[in-house]
Amino acid sequence: MTPRIVILGCGFGGLFAARALHKAPVEITVVDRTNHHLFQPLLYQVATAGLAAPAIAEPIRRALAGQKNVTVLYGEAQRVEVAGRNVVLENGDELPYDRLILATGATDSYFGHDEWRAHAPGLKTLEDAFEIRQRVFLAFEHAEREADPVKRAAWLTFVVIGAGATGVEMAGMLAEIARHTLTGEFRRFDPRNTRVVLVEGMDRVLPPYAPDLSERARVQLERMGVTVWLGRKVTGIDAQGVQLGGDRLEAKTVVWCAGVAASPIGATLGTPLARDGRVIIEPDLTVPGHPEIQAVGDLATLPGHEPPVPGVAPAAKQMGRHAARNIVAALAGHPTRPFRYRDYGQLATIGRSSAVAMFGRVHIWGWLAWIAWLTAHIYFLIGFRNRLVVLIDWAWAYWTFERAARVVDKGARPPEA
Amino acid sequence: MTPRIVILGCGFGGLFAARALHKAPVEITVVDRTNHHLFQPLLYQVATAGLAAPAIAEPIRRALAGQKNVTVLYGEAQRVEVAGRNVVLENGDELPYDRLILATGATDSYFGHDEWRAHAPGLKTLEDAFEIRQRVFLAFEHAEREADPVKRAAWLTFVVIGAGATGVEMAGMLAEIARHTLTGEFRRFDPRNTRVVLVEGMDRVLPPYAPDLSERARVQLERMGVTVWLGRKVTGIDAQGVQLGGDRLEAKTVVWCAGVAASPIGATLGTPLARDGRVIIEPDLTVPGHPEIQAVGDLATLPGHEPPVPGVAPAAKQMGRHAARNIVAALAGHPTRPFRYRDYGQLATIGRSSAVAMFGRVHIWGWLAWIAWLTAHIYFLIGFRNRLVVLIDWAWAYWTFERAARVVDKGARPPEA
Repeated sequence: MTPRIVILGCGFGGLFAARALHKAPVEITVVDRTNHHLFQPLLYQVATAGLAAPAIAEPIRRALAGQKNVTVLYGEAQRVEVAGRNVVLENGDELPYDRLILATGATDSYFGHDEWRAHAPGLKTLEDAFEIRQRVFLAFEHAEREADPVKRAAWLTFVVIGAGATGVEMAGMLAEIARHTLTGEFRRFDPRNTRVVLVEGMDRVLPPYAPDLSERARVQLERMGVTVWLGRKVTGIDAQGVQLGGDRLEAKTVVWCAGVAASPIGATLGTPLARDGRVIIEPDLTVPGHPEIQAVGDLATLPGHEPPVPGVAPAAKQMGRHAARNIVAALAGHPTRPFRYRDYGQLATIGRSSAVAMFGRVHIWGWLAWIAWLTAHIYFLIGFRNRLVVLIDWAWAYWTFERAARVVDKGARPPEA
Repeated sequence: MTPRIVILGCGFGGLFAARALHKAPVEITVVDRTNHHLFQPLLYQVATAGLAAPAIAEPIRRALAGQKNVTVLYGEAQRVEVAGRNVVLENGDELPYDRLILATGATDSYFGHDEWRAHAPGLKTLEDAFEIRQRVFLAFEHAEREADPVKRAAWLTFVVIGAGATGVEMAGMLAEIARHTLTGEFRRFDPRNTRVVLVEGMDRVLPPYAPDLSERARVQLERMGVTVWLGRKVTGIDAQGVQLGGDRLEAKTVVWCAGVAASPIGATLGTPLARDGRVIIEPDLTVPGHPEIQAVGDLATLPGHEPPVPGVAPAAKQMGRHAARNIVAALAGHPTRPFRYRDYGQLATIGRSSAVAMFGRVHIWGWLAWIAWLTAHIYFLIGFRNRLVVLIDWAWAYWTFERAARVVDKGARPPEA
């Protein structure tokens, strides 16, 4: 009988695993709870209206249409029944497997404060991006309607929590919108007085980068008008603002870029988990005691790999591909191979012509790093059409400061005004 | 004191009224309950994933940024207090005016069956378009998950109610998606077996068009695979399908393109309304007994104008501009002029290379009409950038049958499965 491979999640890990199996004599079922593969590294561009959602999202069916050994199912896996080799979906449907690849990624973690979520959405899905886009652009609308200067200031204060790559990108874009995009559009306030505060618990921005680049990034952020608060712990978030110990920021718009937790399905395996919920895996990406299950991407952690595998798209891709190759090897009776992450460099953009990049021991910043970032992101965007439209949107945004996707679909019913 | 002009609604009527006042020594406040001006004639393209929302929506602030005498407010007018010359917004805020232009357009009418709305969304706003896009593309996803062939057939049956221009366009696009776009993407059914039924109460499609063009349109629709049911009245709609007297269509996806009702604010004037709720206006577009109030576009009806002013974008534009000019005249002490609609032709598209058009007594159809339709719609799309991106999206769709915007933002929680 043809081996049945089930792949849960079609992010970078799942998609590249499925593709790497295109010649294998197997029956693959890919399950995802959305209908699209998302180019997550550019999600902040959708949240800040630089790109329309379709530019960074490809229908999973389209991405895998040519691959005859794949069936795509829209659904959400509830649990894995390890003993019966069975996945149970949200409506009770069962998917038996011979081999399983878990690639469901990560969600936001609020460090035990789930009540913060309603006031400070994270940025993991298109739904999140639309929610943030709406909050950001409607905040300016509310400011124009607000007569009380204190209340108006709260609408014009944006707090980004967490200064990893996403937080830095969000803060930079918000500053750019306030300083350039909205020029001349309001009559009752000057959008250049908008306050963007980037809060980080550690003592520098972009903690995974080398300290000299963190410092470059901080300087660039401040030059763009972002207030950077380092070494500050958030102790409360409510509808009116953020509490940091004894300090308070009155802010109607808060974005959460601070914590990542593994997708909960990993816990249903009953195998050891790391403190953040990630599935601990063997060097060949299998789950301990279960050579038929592999876990890849943000869901998994590989102890003993030095330096640690970062939670970035290229790592998920490499792991997905590697898992697929190990399955092919195992099915042919060959031994599996240990995974080794190949680091081609790390890039984070800060704003207009401004980025930092680390290629091994080569550190670059400013305009040059930005060009590197742009090239890499356009190159890796899936699908020719997307790349072209993204290029046009970016070129347009660069020359005009206009953001192409400022529409929000909600009517005048303030979410929590 | 500078005259205060309030414009409610920033569709074609409101936007063109505001623009026509750009040199007038007045203070204009434009109120809209969304943040964007919508190019409604292409909304069906967003609903069927041909275009991303930002391609047909322009931020109102951006559209009017250069016009210093305009303040844009995001809000929803609740009522007009005619005696006090005051508009009351959704939160109680008051906007006093010297002159008022009502341009809030129309909403869907379910002919007294508001319970149908939940099962058969209409197509007036971006929110509507996203709702329909989601229902359409998730219906195919559910069909792939459904094992029972009867239930699967209900997921693969799409009913469009009302064969005006929007209904014809929707039905044509749905047939094209089923027959071409989704080819090769499903394993458990053939999307070409999808059933698209267009239901119309009158005895022909496109009733406002000449009968020969209605017949051409019907033939083109059937050639594309649309089942056209004429002279059929809908008597019930529920989550499982549509009732037409003794007949029943089991269908999970129903789109309502049948009835239009004027926006409810017109009723707060206390002046005579037509049966469909539209404000009855004088030849100079003012409201009877209130020379300081004008009503334009789909909200208004102009008795005695022969042929009747159609409910289309060019009519709203012309009325908006005319209302503005009459205000300028009245403020200068000159008499106002009666409005006369200039009909430059009517165009409706059916699908790929297929349309009908009526320029006075000249009737064209097929490829030629489609080129006319395409040219007109690209020309009238506001903003250079939008036109370019739309062109690229269309050219791409034409050659590949791909639809650029098939993403839906919701996860696997079927709305009413």
